[in-house]
Amino acid sequence: MAPTFFNNRLTQLLHIEYPIIQAGMIWASGWKLASAVSRAGGLGILGAGSMYPDVLREQIRKCKAATDRPFGVNLPLLYPDIEKHIEIIIENRVPVVITSAGSPKTWTSILKEKGIRVIHVVSSSAFAQKAVAAGCDAVVAEGYEAGGHNGREETTTMVLIPQVVQAVSIPVIAAGGIATGQQMLAALALGASGVQIGTRFLASDESSAHPDFKKKVIEAKEGDTHLRMHKLVPVRLLQNEFYRRVEEAEARGACADELKEILGRARAKKGMFEGDLDEGELEIGQVSSLLDDILPAETIVRNLLHDYQHALEALTANR
Amino acid sequence: MAPTFFNNRLTQLLHIEYPIIQAGMIWASGWKLASAVSRAGGLGILGAGSMYPDVLREQIRKCKAATDRPFGVNLPLLYPDIEKHIEIIIENRVPVVITSAGSPKTWTSILKEKGIRVIHVVSSSAFAQKAVAAGCDAVVAEGYEAGGHNGREETTTMVLIPQVVQAVSIPVIAAGGIATGQQMLAALALGASGVQIGTRFLASDESSAHPDFKKKVIEAKEGDTHLRMHKLVPVRLLQNEFYRRVEEAEARGACADELKEILGRARAKKGMFEGDLDEGELEIGQVSSLLDDILPAETIVRNLLHDYQHALEALTANR
Repeated sequence: MAPTFFNNRLTQLLHIEYPIIQAGMIWASGWKLASAVSRAGGLGILGAGSMYPDVLREQIRKCKAATDRPFGVNLPLLYPDIEKHIEIIIENRVPVVITSAGSPKTWTSILKEKGIRVIHVVSSSAFAQKAVAAGCDAVVAEGYEAGGHNGREETTTMVLIPQVVQAVSIPVIAAGGIATGQQMLAALALGASGVQIGTRFLASDESSAHPDFKKKVIEAKEGDTHLRMHKLVPVRLLQNEFYRRVEEAEARGACADELKEILGRARAKKGMFEGDLDEGELEIGQVSSLLDDILPAETIVRNLLHDYQHALEALTANR
Repeated sequence: MAPTFFNNRLTQLLHIEYPIIQAGMIWASGWKLASAVSRAGGLGILGAGSMYPDVLREQIRKCKAATDRPFGVNLPLLYPDIEKHIEIIIENRVPVVITSAGSPKTWTSILKEKGIRVIHVVSSSAFAQKAVAAGCDAVVAEGYEAGGHNGREETTTMVLIPQVVQAVSIPVIAAGGIATGQQMLAALALGASGVQIGTRFLASDESSAHPDFKKKVIEAKEGDTHLRMHKLVPVRLLQNEFYRRVEEAEARGACADELKEILGRARAKKGMFEGDLDEGELEIGQVSSLLDDILPAETIVRNLLHDYQHALEALTANR
């Protein structure tokens, strides 16, 4: 089997070998994971959503020391310290920023003036068009099956990608439900220029998620994750004690305030970083049901490419 | 562009030219649609779920008169007149039966003894394994984005297909979110042997859905369909007055009995067949947002093949 070779708008835009972008998941995406993915030819991403400014600065420096390939930072735009984060990103010449959870209007042009590539995460073609208007270089279109926060339209990757590809002319990166080379091939068949992969990279040696959480992720079965807290911000969670409390409250029609109280503070850290599997908030994608091993990030990238190639050859032979 | 040629386990099993199966949607899938799809090289399906036994008999006869190619009947196994339906199917030598909504145990072997191919619709790999145990020849694996009744696991097509393909060795037909050749290619990339297409064929000249419903389907936008009635049987509906009443009741925690009362009787017929767009139950897939025209079934099949081929060539060139 010949080695897979990509040369498309996305690999050119980001100066990467393979159109594989690691999602900047909170509590899981530090410099070890990001640099490992970038060294393997993808784009590693630091998850700034769970980092204080000083931590982000240190993580960027460590990432740069570990690889001279491009990497990025995921930046939730609603983050309270956003200005400091932006400053640190610019100061340290981070090549790519993926923004989410907020309007791309305010910061995109400021980052772009500094030569930084800006990609915005969207859940609909309307939001994708707003990202284009704000000057973004690409969008991540994230389907209903994705872990963590999610769009209200509940559009799945299979429907969302063609919809967004039709709506905008910048490169579209597919996210949600992608952990294998077959799924990567499916995403590209739908018109995406690349994929963003979260869950599969969370269950890697290098991710900073708690080992017990990684173990729970690879043990997950079909139907073990669901979207919850619709009256706050919908979020895909793995079932546990905390989940069941939310589910029970929602079934009897609990209001947003009650949900907020049940959620409390710092539950994501408690679950995903500290390993409290009962009381923590465990954000993970539906595709966790397909995983059964924790692997080095480099092996994950290699497997993706191998299975992509294999599946493409099978498709071609099927003609 | 060379004409697309398929020769796989599914086309061999069903003696069809293309692995394109039309979903047997209630109130939309009479002999006109089924025979048009079969004549175009796919597998047309009569939707017995909305037919009295006498109607089914007549529809089978008309379908046979309109095409000598294979076709099938979709049979919800919870249907009260199921025994009469089975009798009529056997008497009239229907070549393929797709069963859904119930256990495949009781009827599969009886149908298979008569030389009928039996395919069961599933929403998880556990149900797929039960279909194998019952002797089914293939399964339709239907993702969360599909219209109408839906699984409780909420697994999307992107995740469900690899999961089911891994779990069983009989052919897997992907359903949910498939209306274009690109989506068909994505489904085959995921390991499916073929696709079942509902929404796209509902919006066809030959479907027996009410013209006003067809029009509403092609006008649907992203986020216009959602899964509702989780406490009864989850069903994907297009938003209208009736939908909003259900939504409001669910938001305040309404119980199954209240939902049953709101639903009442014959709402699906009222909406999809009689064209009451406010008070009817409008079952349709998420992919309706991608459609903008009502086409002859033959054109739909031709477009699927054309776009499949085109997308496959683009994928191959991308290497």
